[in-house]
Amino acid sequence: MYVALSRLRVAVAQVDALVSAFRARAHLVDEADGFVDLEVWRSDRDAGEIVMISRWRDRAAFTAYMRSEAHRVSHARIPSDLDAAIRLERLEGLHTYDVVAE
Amino acid sequence: MYVALSRLRVAVAQVDALVSAFRARAHLVDEADGFVDLEVWRSDRDAGEIVMISRWRDRAAFTAYMRSEAHRVSHARIPSDLDAAIRLERLEGLHTYDVVAE
Repeated sequence: MYVALSRLRVAVAQVDALVSAFRARAHLVDEADGFVDLEVWRSDRDAGEIVMISRWRDRAAFTAYMRSEAHRVSHARIPSDLDAAIRLERLEGLHTYDVVAE
Repeated sequence: MYVALSRLRVAVAQVDALVSAFRARAHLVDEADGFVDLEVWRSDRDAGEIVMISRWRDRAAFTAYMRSEAHRVSHARIPSDLDAAIRLERLEGLHTYDVVAE
């Protein structure tokens, strides 16, 4: 299994909007070949820190989705003010991992 | 659901030993009240970066385990050279999160 992790920092006042946006997501990714699941985590110690995790069968499934029209459409649905806030305050780049033990 | 994440950096030559140690873990945590699962991730871009993730019913279950004898015993089983390597090169402290969307 393969995992992609993004850590974001947003203004605390915008966290609820971001979480709501995820809850109302179009679920286009759910149909992608090799998609396993997606979660959004909020830090309980740092109220503006959000982590988005997606899980994939393997790296190839993830990279195919990242190049897909479904991914482009999903991102186009993010309200532009929220998208700008995320881009400005992104903590660090995308991290990706193989699951090596359970 | 509640998630605890630790990012570690170890010398690339020690990663296999660390992963083997996790695969051979005593599974004491599996019996802890509120424990959901545990995974070890290895970065596919940075061969010495390892992430340990444990998932819990809620924060109270996690903090109770962290104070437990089972946790102390689990850590005592880590080979001391490996433990020292991890402590020296820990990337950052523990991060904890509530799962807010799926």
